[in-house]
Amino acid sequence: MLIAEPQFMPFDAALPLRSGASIGGYRLAYETYGRLNADRSNAVLVCHALNASHHVAGVYAGQDRSQGWWDNMVGPGKPVDTDRFFVIGVNNLGSCFGSTGPMHVNPDTGQVYGAGFPVVTVEDWVDAQARLLDALGIDTLAAVMGGSLGGMQALSWTLQYPQRVRHAVVVASAPNLTAENIAFNEVARRAIVTDPDFHGGDYYRHGVIPRRGLRIARMIGHITYLSDDVMNEKFGRQLRDAVQGDYKYSTQEVEFQIESYLRHQGDKFAEYFDANTYLLITRALDYFDPARAFGGDLTRALAPARASFLLVSFSTDWRFAPARSREIVRALLDNRRDLSYAEIDAPHGHDAFLLDDPRYLEVVRAYFDGIARSVGGAR
Amino acid sequence: MLIAEPQFMPFDAALPLRSGASIGGYRLAYETYGRLNADRSNAVLVCHALNASHHVAGVYAGQDRSQGWWDNMVGPGKPVDTDRFFVIGVNNLGSCFGSTGPMHVNPDTGQVYGAGFPVVTVEDWVDAQARLLDALGIDTLAAVMGGSLGGMQALSWTLQYPQRVRHAVVVASAPNLTAENIAFNEVARRAIVTDPDFHGGDYYRHGVIPRRGLRIARMIGHITYLSDDVMNEKFGRQLRDAVQGDYKYSTQEVEFQIESYLRHQGDKFAEYFDANTYLLITRALDYFDPARAFGGDLTRALAPARASFLLVSFSTDWRFAPARSREIVRALLDNRRDLSYAEIDAPHGHDAFLLDDPRYLEVVRAYFDGIARSVGGAR
Repeated sequence: MLIAEPQFMPFDAALPLRSGASIGGYRLAYETYGRLNADRSNAVLVCHALNASHHVAGVYAGQDRSQGWWDNMVGPGKPVDTDRFFVIGVNNLGSCFGSTGPMHVNPDTGQVYGAGFPVVTVEDWVDAQARLLDALGIDTLAAVMGGSLGGMQALSWTLQYPQRVRHAVVVASAPNLTAENIAFNEVARRAIVTDPDFHGGDYYRHGVIPRRGLRIARMIGHITYLSDDVMNEKFGRQLRDAVQGDYKYSTQEVEFQIESYLRHQGDKFAEYFDANTYLLITRALDYFDPARAFGGDLTRALAPARASFLLVSFSTDWRFAPARSREIVRALLDNRRDLSYAEIDAPHGHDAFLLDDPRYLEVVRAYFDGIARSVGGAR
Repeated sequence: MLIAEPQFMPFDAALPLRSGASIGGYRLAYETYGRLNADRSNAVLVCHALNASHHVAGVYAGQDRSQGWWDNMVGPGKPVDTDRFFVIGVNNLGSCFGSTGPMHVNPDTGQVYGAGFPVVTVEDWVDAQARLLDALGIDTLAAVMGGSLGGMQALSWTLQYPQRVRHAVVVASAPNLTAENIAFNEVARRAIVTDPDFHGGDYYRHGVIPRRGLRIARMIGHITYLSDDVMNEKFGRQLRDAVQGDYKYSTQEVEFQIESYLRHQGDKFAEYFDANTYLLITRALDYFDPARAFGGDLTRALAPARASFLLVSFSTDWRFAPARSREIVRALLDNRRDLSYAEIDAPHGHDAFLLDDPRYLEVVRAYFDGIARSVGGAR
């Protein structure tokens, strides 16, 4: 069993951010799995999405079961094989799982950041990750990979540090958010910001948490992670506890199973996720748009990339639909980049990128087998 | 110009409801357009969806422009021609536009209903509408019509009162809600119910309105009324007021046009719509499911219908997708009912049923021309 241990890397030098602000005196939480080979050529960086962290795989001492968010993907003998690769998971700046975020003290002011935490972008995260690699003595990544927002980071790596990335694996991602994507993010943010317990982002000081808003945000999110198909299959119109098969005729009680599921997801999330982090991370999603500086021309935007690519999308993903991955594919082909693209016919919607679809896992495995042949193994 | 005037019909006798409760001493707001012909055979009942009312068409005295929600459909020379048909718009029980609703006094208790307003179903509304027709001296409808939730009422009319309906026009509707539909309703309800200003539904007494919740509910609703396509076309990733084309880098300020649009829609809605009504009407949507009493067999459920049908759906409507209309079509064909079905290729999503798509309006016009030929005109 893969044993994981969180580590923390402090950074004193200020990191300039795309907003024009900068952040100094921060730390990044990260984990590594496997061993770096002699020529330091087998490192794989895994970038996380909205509510995940540096804990990608493995168990912490004393745990029976992994809570790593991509434990089905990363580990000994798994598609990203930690017997061959040195895998790094890193928690992004502004997140709430160990790296410096809004709940921490700003060393410049001695006050908790709260709403004053600087807005961070995908590009900023990539810069911060690059500094972490510097600190770990890794110049070039065998691969950078991620799903959803993590895929945006992987893509951005190939543009910001083209010489440092040999392969990029971009799963269930998009070259930017659509208006509808932004709309869902905005509703979630408004639910949080207008919760009276939000206190303009300084709820820490008031000893409260904007749980109502977080619950609503998470419920909305969950609807968009699943497909209509899988929701109908898992929940359909099932009642939670039908009394003699009849409705309760209530507007506030739980009547349908899907309501119970969503409320449960919302309640759980509100217990562990930070509201300011939610705002920051959804905004990073909104802002990501590499083609923006090129008048919307994605082909020109992706011209700097030197990596080879694996792109994967899922047929029922309506949050980051296959058509969005195909936009990236087309722009990379226009630039004559090496790439493989798999569109997996899976019923699970956006969530599929975290699940055990055998075809999907085999595609990734085969791709990493190819990478492994070209780098010296750890063994 | 069609002049509209709201009327009110009081009902003393208690109306039994599907929940087992009943409601007495209520009134229905309604409007009529055109003239009932001599043999009372040219009446058309128009059923409304979530946030509409009895004010279907025409102007009130002193208005320049109609605020009727289906003024493009109903009026002199329009698809439902009020020179030929006697059209009735009725506000449903529990709504907030004139018929008895949660903001009114319960005559049994002398207290405002508030959260105590009984849960009403599509079937209950149809029963109440049938009583209104009785009071107006109308036995048989030339047609009943509606879009979305209004279409559910039209469909239910053909099952509850098969002998009283000659034609049913069911637009952008569904035989029941999917799990995803229910999920969106539930998130909206939770946003309202968990707003501290909701006070368990008795906010009237506290002199407040759960505006935060209503805003969130409406924003969610609006996302589902539009298609991804039309959102991208109307808003895309446009910034609202780009300072030298750059982002503001803010999590709370409006950055994108789509955010501005949604906030505006939410603000407007919270000014005029009642929160308890929102809960009631979304629940009526959730509960509608004529096949439920037949183990999910829609064909058996629709067997009582005697009407002829026009069904219309819109290609980009993902709230009530064409596939849902086709389920109704199939079940009606199994029952050898007369029907026409039009699937309109329109970019506007669910909202299309309210808009001026010429092909759609022509389909409805042609259908009503056929009805007009079979009934004596008003002239």
